[in-house]
Amino acid sequence: MEYRIEKDTMGEVKVPANVYWGAQTQRSIENFKIAQDINKMPKPIIDAFAYLKKAAAITNCDLGVLPAEKKDAIAQVCDEILEHKLDDQFPLVVWQTGSGTQSNMNVNEVVAYRAHVIKGGALTDKEKFLHPNDDVNKSQSSNDTFPTAMHIAAYKMLVETTIPGVEKLRDTLAAKSKAFMNVVKIGRTHFMDATPLTLGQEFSGYTAQLNFGLKAIKNSLAHLSELALGGTAVGTGINTPNGYAALVAKHIATLTGLPFVTAENKFEALAAHDAIVEAHGALKTVAVSLMKIANDIRMLSSGPRSGIGEIFIPDNEPGSSIMPGKVNPTQCEALTMIAAQVMGNDVAINIGGATGHFELNVFKPVMIANFLHSARLIGEGCISFNDKCAAGIEPIEANIKKHVDNSLMLVTSLNTKIGYYKAAEIAQKAHKEGTTLKEMAVKLGYVTPEEFDAWVIPADMVGSLK
Amino acid sequence: MEYRIEKDTMGEVKVPANVYWGAQTQRSIENFKIAQDINKMPKPIIDAFAYLKKAAAITNCDLGVLPAEKKDAIAQVCDEILEHKLDDQFPLVVWQTGSGTQSNMNVNEVVAYRAHVIKGGALTDKEKFLHPNDDVNKSQSSNDTFPTAMHIAAYKMLVETTIPGVEKLRDTLAAKSKAFMNVVKIGRTHFMDATPLTLGQEFSGYTAQLNFGLKAIKNSLAHLSELALGGTAVGTGINTPNGYAALVAKHIATLTGLPFVTAENKFEALAAHDAIVEAHGALKTVAVSLMKIANDIRMLSSGPRSGIGEIFIPDNEPGSSIMPGKVNPTQCEALTMIAAQVMGNDVAINIGGATGHFELNVFKPVMIANFLHSARLIGEGCISFNDKCAAGIEPIEANIKKHVDNSLMLVTSLNTKIGYYKAAEIAQKAHKEGTTLKEMAVKLGYVTPEEFDAWVIPADMVGSLK
Amino acid sequence: MEYRIEKDTMGEVKVPANVYWGAQTQRSIENFKIAQDINKMPKPIIDAFAYLKKAAAITNCDLGVLPAEKKDAIAQVCDEILEHKLDDQFPLVVWQTGSGTQSNMNVNEVVAYRAHVIKGGALTDKEKFLHPNDDVNKSQSSNDTFPTAMHIAAYKMLVETTIPGVEKLRDTLAAKSKAFMNVVKIGRTHFMDATPLTLGQEFSGYTAQLNFGLKAIKNSLAHLSELALGGTAVGTGINTPNGYAALVAKHIATLTGLPFVTAENKFEALAAHDAIVEAHGALKTVAVSLMKIANDIRMLSSGPRSGIGEIFIPDNEPGSSIMPGKVNPTQCEALTMIAAQVMGNDVAINIGGATGHFELNVFKPVMIANFLHSARLIGEGCISFNDKCAAGIEPIEANIKKHVDNSLMLVTSLNTKIGYYKAAEIAQKAHKEGTTLKEMAVKLGYVTPEEFDAWVIPADMVGSLK
Amino acid sequence: MEYRIEKDTMGEVKVPANVYWGAQTQRSIENFKIAQDINKMPKPIIDAFAYLKKAAAITNCDLGVLPAEKKDAIAQVCDEILEHKLDDQFPLVVWQTGSGTQSNMNVNEVVAYRAHVIKGGALTDKEKFLHPNDDVNKSQSSNDTFPTAMHIAAYKMLVETTIPGVEKLRDTLAAKSKAFMNVVKIGRTHFMDATPLTLGQEFSGYTAQLNFGLKAIKNSLAHLSELALGGTAVGTGINTPNGYAALVAKHIATLTGLPFVTAENKFEALAAHDAIVEAHGALKTVAVSLMKIANDIRMLSSGPRSGIGEIFIPDNEPGSSIMPGKVNPTQCEALTMIAAQVMGNDVAINIGGATGHFELNVFKPVMIANFLHSARLIGEGCISFNDKCAAGIEPIEANIKKHVDNSLMLVTSLNTKIGYYKAAEIAQKAHKEGTTLKEMAVKLGYVTPEEFDAWVIPADMVGSLK
Repeated sequence: MEYRIEKDTMGEVKVPANVYWGAQTQRSIENFKIAQDINKMPKPIIDAFAYLKKAAAITNCDLGVLPAEKKDAIAQVCDEILEHKLDDQFPLVVWQTGSGTQSNMNVNEVVAYRAHVIKGGALTDKEKFLHPNDDVNKSQSSNDTFPTAMHIAAYKMLVETTIPGVEKLRDTLAAKSKAFMNVVKIGRTHFMDATPLTLGQEFSGYTAQLNFGLKAIKNSLAHLSELALGGTAVGTGINTPNGYAALVAKHIATLTGLPFVTAENKFEALAAHDAIVEAHGALKTVAVSLMKIANDIRMLSSGPRSGIGEIFIPDNEPGSSIMPGKVNPTQCEALTMIAAQVMGNDVAINIGGATGHFELNVFKPVMIANFLHSARLIGEGCISFNDKCAAGIEPIEANIKKHVDNSLMLVTSLNTKIGYYKAAEIAQKAHKEGTTLKEMAVKLGYVTPEEFDAWVIPADMVGSLK
Repeated sequence: MEYRIEKDTMGEVKVPANVYWGAQTQRSIENFKIAQDINKMPKPIIDAFAYLKKAAAITNCDLGVLPAEKKDAIAQVCDEILEHKLDDQFPLVVWQTGSGTQSNMNVNEVVAYRAHVIKGGALTDKEKFLHPNDDVNKSQSSNDTFPTAMHIAAYKMLVETTIPGVEKLRDTLAAKSKAFMNVVKIGRTHFMDATPLTLGQEFSGYTAQLNFGLKAIKNSLAHLSELALGGTAVGTGINTPNGYAALVAKHIATLTGLPFVTAENKFEALAAHDAIVEAHGALKTVAVSLMKIANDIRMLSSGPRSGIGEIFIPDNEPGSSIMPGKVNPTQCEALTMIAAQVMGNDVAINIGGATGHFELNVFKPVMIANFLHSARLIGEGCISFNDKCAAGIEPIEANIKKHVDNSLMLVTSLNTKIGYYKAAEIAQKAHKEGTTLKEMAVKLGYVTPEEFDAWVIPADMVGSLK
Repeated sequence: MEYRIEKDTMGEVKVPANVYWGAQTQRSIENFKIAQDINKMPKPIIDAFAYLKKAAAITNCDLGVLPAEKKDAIAQVCDEILEHKLDDQFPLVVWQTGSGTQSNMNVNEVVAYRAHVIKGGALTDKEKFLHPNDDVNKSQSSNDTFPTAMHIAAYKMLVETTIPGVEKLRDTLAAKSKAFMNVVKIGRTHFMDATPLTLGQEFSGYTAQLNFGLKAIKNSLAHLSELALGGTAVGTGINTPNGYAALVAKHIATLTGLPFVTAENKFEALAAHDAIVEAHGALKTVAVSLMKIANDIRMLSSGPRSGIGEIFIPDNEPGSSIMPGKVNPTQCEALTMIAAQVMGNDVAINIGGATGHFELNVFKPVMIANFLHSARLIGEGCISFNDKCAAGIEPIEANIKKHVDNSLMLVTSLNTKIGYYKAAEIAQKAHKEGTTLKEMAVKLGYVTPEEFDAWVIPADMVGSLK
Repeated sequence: MEYRIEKDTMGEVKVPANVYWGAQTQRSIENFKIAQDINKMPKPIIDAFAYLKKAAAITNCDLGVLPAEKKDAIAQVCDEILEHKLDDQFPLVVWQTGSGTQSNMNVNEVVAYRAHVIKGGALTDKEKFLHPNDDVNKSQSSNDTFPTAMHIAAYKMLVETTIPGVEKLRDTLAAKSKAFMNVVKIGRTHFMDATPLTLGQEFSGYTAQLNFGLKAIKNSLAHLSELALGGTAVGTGINTPNGYAALVAKHIATLTGLPFVTAENKFEALAAHDAIVEAHGALKTVAVSLMKIANDIRMLSSGPRSGIGEIFIPDNEPGSSIMPGKVNPTQCEALTMIAAQVMGNDVAINIGGATGHFELNVFKPVMIANFLHSARLIGEGCISFNDKCAAGIEPIEANIKKHVDNSLMLVTSLNTKIGYYKAAEIAQKAHKEGTTLKEMAVKLGYVTPEEFDAWVIPADMVGSLK
């Protein structure tokens, strides 16, 4: 490979001849040979940097500390980044400095050097049109840009991927709930037969779970909307022009179309990432919900002959490499694996969030990588589960009817007529002797056949349906 | 010990002669010999049951399904429970049935049998004034009472213990922040010297963290305010009179003085405890904040001679059994241990929340026990930390001044004057040769002594103070 | 209450007149008002301190730095502690100094003052027969006694409670496996019907899991057997007589009957508690196993009419306060709740273990409290689950036979005869048309009825039985 | 793009014309559009499949159920996979069926179709030389191949990456410990000054931690060495020839050079992955150790002027984009972020491990992906930390000396001379009045200057050095 020589404050570094990055990016590649093929800094972070570098340049220009020509050059490269034309220029991994300094410098270098080339310069020119630190990073530091990029990326992922994914699944489950509202089925508590409800009622619980989860996610957006930019190195805003923090947040809001504002307290915004911890708390709540829902659906569809078999889910692929004709609830499995991952990611984020010190939390990359991972998995996992599983769910009426008709827990209707103790006696003896409830109720002399038929009606046990 | 014989639907059980509980409680004692001395069902759950049993009795009476005399008898015993006169009547542990059925029955039995005694009856009477199931548990099941008790207990603990504790600490830190607002000190990022800020600014970050945490807790109250009661066994409200659910929630709200309402979806309210998962997500966010704050404070107070030593914290006790005169940041240690516990509890709650099936989550006791543990630890831990540590924090001005005066990172002020690269050269050479920044800056010829003094002023590097 | 005045190096403290503890214990009570009624320092830690204080006294006497009379006095009180005569003298909680200094001093004070009373002195005597620091704590510090107590308590709990509990359950499951070895039943993968196995084979998997878990626990004992005592304040063994560390470990081994040795590296033994982290890793592995086993058992016993219903588990108590005659798998629920708790405790321990600094880990109390909690819950939980559930498991042969006879996955036998694709076609069509496998296989012309009967024999599909 | 038509038991699928995979792989791509660019099934799993498919083919041939020509064809493609010539043929992600069936079929298809092309056939030929199910998957199922691949991949990663990485760091720390054995420094407990030790002693604690961690990892290898292969669908070994299981394990052992054996109990090997849970428990123990070590090292190197500053660590890159000349402990940060990730991964693995049901755990992909991630991060993270940080650590003697000379805790030496209480008085008054210990000791009249000099010698307080 051919190289050119780049310099930073520590000296010279050999860099591949044609890349736009410079000395500091190259140092990081060489200093952090850790999972380089699988743990790249997430692309949404690079995109977020593009938004913020552009916004910072505009703001610096507005406030008279950056010439318009430099501003335009920075903005142009940022646009190229957002168009994903420069994806291969960001080779760094999550496992780097905990402030994300090297990714900030990676962006600074690529913007500066690419702009120089656009301007007609050569990568080997000693002086370039833009300086990575003095121009592209002007009025910024890693310590306020990286957390800003975290919030931009997290917020965007939540509103563009996570929330729409959960909402789509929620809508499908709500529609199924409505469609199945009159399908009376056996209830199950403790995995044991219980009083009946309708399949639509059962699904309404899932819908309610996701609605609460969506509320929890949305509650966390306010904290995420606060941006650290303008805090610079330690939160004091050193080396920023007057009015910079509020204005740069406004520009970011405009560029992204999202309601970002400048953080009220910059010291918190650099030293802690409780917004990420809090918002991921909402994500893990949704993961908990999804685990419950997907578990229920796979158990309800279990069988086909020796399980519960009350619902049909679509057959998407052969289920077994050895058992011919087997079909499995694979979308449920993917979704529950995602739930497990999100619950694990939560712990990594908590530990990272708890271990900041003094003016800076230096677990930034691991926190945001786990956050974006979870947010994306939930969003895309819900879409997959929705499209390939939930949307195709149908009741298997024959099994549903068989189960409810056999149930001993219909006896609960008799509590208010003959009391809990006599009702229990009927159920226990019917169970022991293998009779129907009615047979045993009459045999014990507690009700007449007519009373039984009038009092024990599954469809009357499910309450109001809406 | 003397015994009497009690009966339930499964047969006879020997019960200690003088206790108010009955057969089902006794069975649970004998069936679950697990950590009986250390893991009692939390008292706030028993209290919550007292509120809800009383409210249910009033509602049942209002709706004409329970005579006033029985209602009054139930209410009277519930009041005794709330006055903690019957504390020794609730011997069951967390490790029981996952629906909390046995604790519900424990309350039903105690209320019924104590009422009978109050009425002048004897515990050995075969027929009693109240029946545990048919009267005390009327229009209820464990499946809706236990989750109702969970929400009552959780909500009460949050508003009575957790939030006031965090607020008290927040207020102290805010006052310290104000008091220390002009104490200029060295900033530290990556544990390394950075640009200066004031001690008050540093503390303002802590205050901001707790304010965000309080918001997160408060955001979670709405979900917790929804009560399952009226859902009975599976969410359909079987065996409840018309209008019961809304009315009983209203009575609970009145009795507790808290804004409880009936849950919009009872199926979710029984089958999932995402409200607990979500609210504990807020608690773990606060735990993460407290870990950061307490870590900072113990490191800032480290020394007395070979540490950072920038703040004084109160000496509360001898710190070492072998090193005479040693004083340690023990309140920081208790608080960080609490933070670790809460982060662990969070995982137990997540797993419990994710593992409900069909119409019922049966990890109820473990979830609420961990929740109440965390909520109490944070509340009481903050009070302890506040009273015995935070309230006594004072700056150690001599050390603060020494550190800021020595700092090489004051060079950052020169970035906008001479550029990042020359500024870096000054700092690196000063570090290597052990000189002051000024000496090196002048020696390298980048600034005059006069310029240095005019440009590098720590107090000017801390931004606006408010 | 009446008080006496006690003194420590910080001054005077009012202490209840009749207690054996002194100034430092009292300070801790007043300084740490956190969950005082529910989070006492675990009793096994107090017991462990009794062993080690006695061993230290004997060692000090052996090595000529403590008179025999003082040694005897210390030993006598330690014996009283071990006989649980002084249980109410240890009022401190987990949430104290992270080194456990205050609990060490609590023991030092109680031993010194109780000995003085035994000797005929009064608690109000200014000079006492033993000095808490100079005699009882001689050649010790909190920093090496507390981790020693952690290892003693953890090791004892594992070998006395955890391992026997798991072994008892393992033995029952092994016996059931043997008893059920010829009961051919349907297999289930992905919750879906699969090829058959025997109920005994299924249970052999549970047995194997617990055997591996027991091995994992036992693997962790070696590290736990190393004792910190003799490291004193920072690992250097300052203020200990020559030969002390090895000898005191030997005495502890003799007193406890367990193979304790002195830690090879005392710096690690004070500054880190990886032995606790590692051993708890084994406990959480067992928790994971128990969750799987208990889940399987409750699902296998689900029904009685609308579930799987392949095994019977004992009815221990009425299962529902509203559904008469309902019986639930309550022991499974207690055990799975325990598993969730242990998995949560693991995280608390990890965070504590990771957050030690320099010469001392100060998350000692929270780590050992969680460890002992888990170890006890697993041990007692297994006994409860064993005695009240596993021991009574019996197959429900009718259901088992019905499920296996209906299964479409018996078609797997035909793979090696007619190929995977044709076998799949048979199963899929039989499923769609609701026929038996044999009917469809013959109808499709792939096998003759005679071939089918010869090739598809469930009992031949279960491999070798041992 | 051009396509060809492939078929499986469910019908036709359009597949890109030139890929070696077939219908089932393609279905999975289309059915699981979840994080496809970032969560590919880990390569070590594909490699492990190549080993096992080759071993299965050899075994099938040995046992007379597969012709030699087919065996050779399979082996040839497996070798190509292991030479990484077919890396782009494995497009599937972790989020698929929980048994990994689709990745097993991906391998089956690629082996079959690539072999057909090698034999001179065309991908569009209807009949191919090898059949993915009947030949490549012969005597196998996903249910036993995927867990076998998990153990092969996990074991290889541990012995080839994790253990060597940890050992390299351990060796460096051991060498540093030896080199620094006589550098007397202040000890720190509770972040507070304590009695002295040597820098070499401090580092010996780190070495000991890693040695224990290595032992824990090695303890877990035995369980991982047991292979599920031969259990086929549910553990009974259906459709495998006699002697298959033991022989195929032997061939895998030969091919990999690792001591694999057939699992004693195949039911456990399919239905549970406790071996992964247990081994990851060891990895998280190491993560806990690394967090402690890296934290210590960054705090010891903190400064350069306002921190502890007792050791020098290499400057690898500019540390700040705004603070010129700043250098940060970036390798410590990467390593502690890794530790946080591993502790999070542990929870994901625990949940996956706990949530298997009946004859199959269907969290296989998420479990092994997290395991391999952790194992690799620790191995590569230790190498990076070693090469770029630990290897360059040097003491900063001036600061070390200053700290130890100033310490008040040297007073501990006087305990055995004048008693704990008088020693405490000296330290407290020296602290309050800002004097040296000696000045105060003499002033209080407790010792003569000569006694002080004879009794208080830091180098004598560090015990025996080895």
